[in-house]
Amino acid sequence: MKIGFIGLGTMGRPMAGHLLAAGHQLFLYARKQIGPEFIEAGAMSCASASEVAQSSDVIILMVPDTSDVEAVLFGQAGVVHGLSAGKIVVDMSSISPIATKEFARKIRDLGADYLDAPVSGGEVGAKNASLTIMVGGSKEAFDSVKPLFEILGKNITRIGGNGDGQTAKVANQIIVALTIEAVGEALLFASKAGADPSVVRKALMGGFASSRILEVHGERMVQRNFDPGFRIELHAKDLNLALDGAKALGVSLPGTAAAQQLFNACMANDGKAWDHSAMVKALELLAAHSITAPAA
Amino acid sequence: MKIGFIGLGTMGRPMAGHLLAAGHQLFLYARKQIGPEFIEAGAMSCASASEVAQSSDVIILMVPDTSDVEAVLFGQAGVVHGLSAGKIVVDMSSISPIATKEFARKIRDLGADYLDAPVSGGEVGAKNASLTIMVGGSKEAFDSVKPLFEILGKNITRIGGNGDGQTAKVANQIIVALTIEAVGEALLFASKAGADPSVVRKALMGGFASSRILEVHGERMVQRNFDPGFRIELHAKDLNLALDGAKALGVSLPGTAAAQQLFNACMANDGKAWDHSAMVKALELLAAHSITAPAA
Repeated sequence: MKIGFIGLGTMGRPMAGHLLAAGHQLFLYARKQIGPEFIEAGAMSCASASEVAQSSDVIILMVPDTSDVEAVLFGQAGVVHGLSAGKIVVDMSSISPIATKEFARKIRDLGADYLDAPVSGGEVGAKNASLTIMVGGSKEAFDSVKPLFEILGKNITRIGGNGDGQTAKVANQIIVALTIEAVGEALLFASKAGADPSVVRKALMGGFASSRILEVHGERMVQRNFDPGFRIELHAKDLNLALDGAKALGVSLPGTAAAQQLFNACMANDGKAWDHSAMVKALELLAAHSITAPAA
Repeated sequence: MKIGFIGLGTMGRPMAGHLLAAGHQLFLYARKQIGPEFIEAGAMSCASASEVAQSSDVIILMVPDTSDVEAVLFGQAGVVHGLSAGKIVVDMSSISPIATKEFARKIRDLGADYLDAPVSGGEVGAKNASLTIMVGGSKEAFDSVKPLFEILGKNITRIGGNGDGQTAKVANQIIVALTIEAVGEALLFASKAGADPSVVRKALMGGFASSRILEVHGERMVQRNFDPGFRIELHAKDLNLALDGAKALGVSLPGTAAAQQLFNACMANDGKAWDHSAMVKALELLAAHSITAPAA
């Protein structure tokens, strides 16, 4: 299949590599250098997003934010200027669900189709082709693109119509942020009360408090390993999508708003590039105490 | 073994029943009626907590709150008046970790030993003998009482010294409350954005947002099933232990404090006896929207 791929950053580069390795013809466009490894393997470098759209059946976007998607799709030499009926735009970036519905409507008005297909799993998931992919759009478009998703990820779900993929991603990021806070407050309390946080973590893993976050990030908090992983500045961006969305939709998310303030506190303390589990460091500042094992 | 059991409420009654069925000699004391089923099966009814202590090797308490434990142990005709060296007091109530350390010190000063051994798993866990038991106290006392714990539960951990069992229970309740809020905010956002919350829940179950709470209480929120389960008024009591403990220890728990306010909002709306997953109803009030599937 002729696949366009726009955005070759930390996530996009390994994803495009998997598609190329699977034998697809790739048409690439990126703000920075494409990289000789792609060209040597037969991928075509395009001068603009519109040229990518003109050359491809499926046009995949993997760019940072809502405004980037808007510029790539509708800006000068953007995707719409090369689009024709029957093509499918697949936005795998994590952006606003509300803007997504508008973007999709405009693309469909041109006779093309649109899928929002944000991912979770981060850089490791992109490299290992083990991403979770949450898709919004028509059943027909989903079925056409599904073989490509299966090259990139493992847990692939069509949530519903356009925007619903981005909505699911936002819901995911809300849960992950608040569960990090849950585990952080619990282990910090336990440590300050004199219990061994690693023993508490293990004891709770079997019961109602168990979660992937307690398993993975609980261990990070105890081990004091805050290398990313998933950077706080990126999770803060995702919570902005939740809070902007909440404002636009008329929903109150008090816990999400408070978790965002803890990320802000981390970023104020040079923590932009800390792993998001380091949210606990903001709680530790407030308590003037870090999670530590009790003296033997 | 001669076992004293004080407190035959919702939790204590089935627990004492399991110990009796396992062939132990039981000495019972409760504020209300013991119940003929115990007497017919050979258990002895005692006139006071001190009489229970005098007759038994291990004295188990299962009463509502810190003040109840204090009264049963140290009040008029309390446990200490029948206690002698070598006996073990086992408090399975969920109470203050800080008060527990003081109670344990006083009991050990009398030559007896003390275990704090709060449980999670609720009424169902008590009836099915599948409780999670978090224990604080000496290794020797834990080893002596462990065969009894194994009659009552499945996931049994010695966390550390006295108080550490109660600390682990508080940590458990912090995580459970905040994870309920996490799932509630995420599914409410998804529903208001027009996605199907049951599909979102399923899609997220495989990834980093997965938890027992998303699995069990996420389903409750979608199905609108808020029959207890574990009542909000009991979870609010447990968060009080967390917040009182935080104040005494010098820890700040902003998320726990906010979650408690959501429980308060539920209780202000006749929700004392709702299942704790109904915390989402307070969020729904704020959003003037309940979690619902989109119109087909």
